[in-house]
Amino acid sequence: MTQPPVKLLVVFYSTYGTNLGMAREAAQAAEAAGAQVRLRRAAETAPQSVVDSQEPWKANLQAMQDIPAATPDDMEWADGFVFSTPTQFGGAASQMRAFIDTLGGLWAAGKLAGKTFSAMTSAQNPNGGQETTLQTLYVTAMHWGAILVPPGYTHQHIFASGGNPYGASVTANGQPLSDEDRHTIRHQVARQVELTRKLLS
Amino acid sequence: MTQPPVKLLVVFYSTYGTNLGMAREAAQAAEAAGAQVRLRRAAETAPQSVVDSQEPWKANLQAMQDIPAATPDDMEWADGFVFSTPTQFGGAASQMRAFIDTLGGLWAAGKLAGKTFSAMTSAQNPNGGQETTLQTLYVTAMHWGAILVPPGYTHQHIFASGGNPYGASVTANGQPLSDEDRHTIRHQVARQVELTRKLLS
Amino acid sequence: MTQPPVKLLVVFYSTYGTNLGMAREAAQAAEAAGAQVRLRRAAETAPQSVVDSQEPWKANLQAMQDIPAATPDDMEWADGFVFSTPTQFGGAASQMRAFIDTLGGLWAAGKLAGKTFSAMTSAQNPNGGQETTLQTLYVTAMHWGAILVPPGYTHQHIFASGGNPYGASVTANGQPLSDEDRHTIRHQVARQVELTRKLLS
Amino acid sequence: MTQPPVKLLVVFYSTYGTNLGMAREAAQAAEAAGAQVRLRRAAETAPQSVVDSQEPWKANLQAMQDIPAATPDDMEWADGFVFSTPTQFGGAASQMRAFIDTLGGLWAAGKLAGKTFSAMTSAQNPNGGQETTLQTLYVTAMHWGAILVPPGYTHQHIFASGGNPYGASVTANGQPLSDEDRHTIRHQVARQVELTRKLLS
Repeated sequence: MTQPPVKLLVVFYSTYGTNLGMAREAAQAAEAAGAQVRLRRAAETAPQSVVDSQEPWKANLQAMQDIPAATPDDMEWADGFVFSTPTQFGGAASQMRAFIDTLGGLWAAGKLAGKTFSAMTSAQNPNGGQETTLQTLYVTAMHWGAILVPPGYTHQHIFASGGNPYGASVTANGQPLSDEDRHTIRHQVARQVELTRKLLS
Repeated sequence: MTQPPVKLLVVFYSTYGTNLGMAREAAQAAEAAGAQVRLRRAAETAPQSVVDSQEPWKANLQAMQDIPAATPDDMEWADGFVFSTPTQFGGAASQMRAFIDTLGGLWAAGKLAGKTFSAMTSAQNPNGGQETTLQTLYVTAMHWGAILVPPGYTHQHIFASGGNPYGASVTANGQPLSDEDRHTIRHQVARQVELTRKLLS
Repeated sequence: MTQPPVKLLVVFYSTYGTNLGMAREAAQAAEAAGAQVRLRRAAETAPQSVVDSQEPWKANLQAMQDIPAATPDDMEWADGFVFSTPTQFGGAASQMRAFIDTLGGLWAAGKLAGKTFSAMTSAQNPNGGQETTLQTLYVTAMHWGAILVPPGYTHQHIFASGGNPYGASVTANGQPLSDEDRHTIRHQVARQVELTRKLLS
Repeated sequence: MTQPPVKLLVVFYSTYGTNLGMAREAAQAAEAAGAQVRLRRAAETAPQSVVDSQEPWKANLQAMQDIPAATPDDMEWADGFVFSTPTQFGGAASQMRAFIDTLGGLWAAGKLAGKTFSAMTSAQNPNGGQETTLQTLYVTAMHWGAILVPPGYTHQHIFASGGNPYGASVTANGQPLSDEDRHTIRHQVARQVELTRKLLS
């Protein structure tokens, strides 16, 4: 008898494109691992005039218009979540936190509990919040009763891409993701899909 | 020769009034300690329709309309900052993070460095993020090059109000602040003003 | 076909008895949930003369002499771990960290990965490290590739005992554990055993 | 009228030599900045047989025999502290925690409050705990009532050495410290001495 596929939600915020690329990679990896996937972005909350004042931000926002904004319904639908956000002074982008703040109703109804969670991030400096930002997201997921599945050092790829045991993290430099970063993301997500499948069985 | 007064900025976000009360107490304590004070709120970022759907939220937002929204200029003006925010799943409210995210320009210009910082918070449960939320704010202030002045256990009042060494924290229950909480806030802020004065001399 | 029982390791350090009581409660709850359990203490590392200089510490250490010291072999044996330690200035007791520091070999061999983990703690003050101490343990378990199963708010008992979503935490006051604390511990551990069973299947 | 020199205590633990080098650099920088300095190591707590089983560990321990072990008296003497420790699974080495655990008496007497604190660390991987380990130390110092003076991004050197705003951190690879790492350490410590001097005036 076949088990229904794992439902994985990838939620990201991206200012200039790095986390967009990371989230797309995660979504593809989840599908390759047999999951049903929703790729969703945290809605922009900055005033349009601010976005428009920075050409790369504006262009990236336009490039994401086909990706639906994340909703509480997506969270209820999913068996597991992958969150990806740039650091902002060692915390998640406020757009991601704004989405998180809409989840009070689901939480109160107990509908966020028992789902898997892992996180990804990027920063301009190798030690500029790549660890602390992930920790702030895991703390939040603990409030939901999530089952946390950070990658640890469960694959050699992780060492090659900076050795972050808390989740894939990228030093954002305007370049495409490196192969090491892609491999690391794919491993983290495939492992999460597999663990989620076991928890559902 | 008289030293000019310490300039202290109190920034808060408040959904239902607890952090509004904490911030007012902090502002009064700072003035009593001889500081020049700006009391500012993090602007609301939730859609008006969402706010309007919750009467206590709507009423509190109206009650704060006379308090100016915090701006980067306020941060540049100040010698020290006190931030106060309710927890949202172990992190600061997204409205506070949204204000923080506007500070990239000041940061890049080095204009946030060397100023003092302490934080306050509230949660519905005694152990429901009162420590972790403060930590996320201190991590952020470290990115600015701030000088962190959490209270530790430098006064007996702190033990009486829950013993949080990271900053004043209140278990929000719809009641006015207890005397113990007020004393704890006043001690934290008076100490910060005094330390800031020394750093400026 | 019957699945073999989940093997759960409870490791604790206790200076005056609080975490000893918490660990015993956890061990009983795990057995009641059908797990095979090892209850182990982190070996004392303080000089005997220091222990002897404090009668309650000395008495508690003697009371634990029948409990074997935790070893790396115990970690390899287990499918899941529960760690319990008093806070020491917002971190785990150094005796617990000393045990953790012996696990480098197992870690390098990949033998700590994929096992479940949750944590418990105690402090003298309600907000005196009950959250931060647990976070330091979860960070460590992430390095191992552990699957983190903090309780969140998955049972009403948790609210009644302080509402700590990161793990059971007790305000140590020399009294026996309250019923609320016992219920919270039992829920956390029973849930962990159940989740571990699913991951093994 | 001349102010007495700032008294700075540098406490470190070092397994293979990296933090020994970092601590020596810090001590030299503090002296160059006009401070009176004590360089102290956290006493080894691992059994001698374990140390002896690893030749590099044994050799490094012998190389440090002329450096006195840190004591609570050193903490009472100092106006400010710099702590340096390798990461062990995202936390400080247990030897450092063992020293910290001896400070309960001083803390209870209020003799740790109001002193400045900054931290340094090393890890084998760029993102293998270089941020989280520092955070665990800052949390601890908050319990003491310390004034935290992490470097932020207050000098260009910090960007060149990995951009860690929480403190100097080194990717340990068996090589001598890079010039960028040395500059970063010297900046952090010189800034701390200067800030401590202001607080004492």
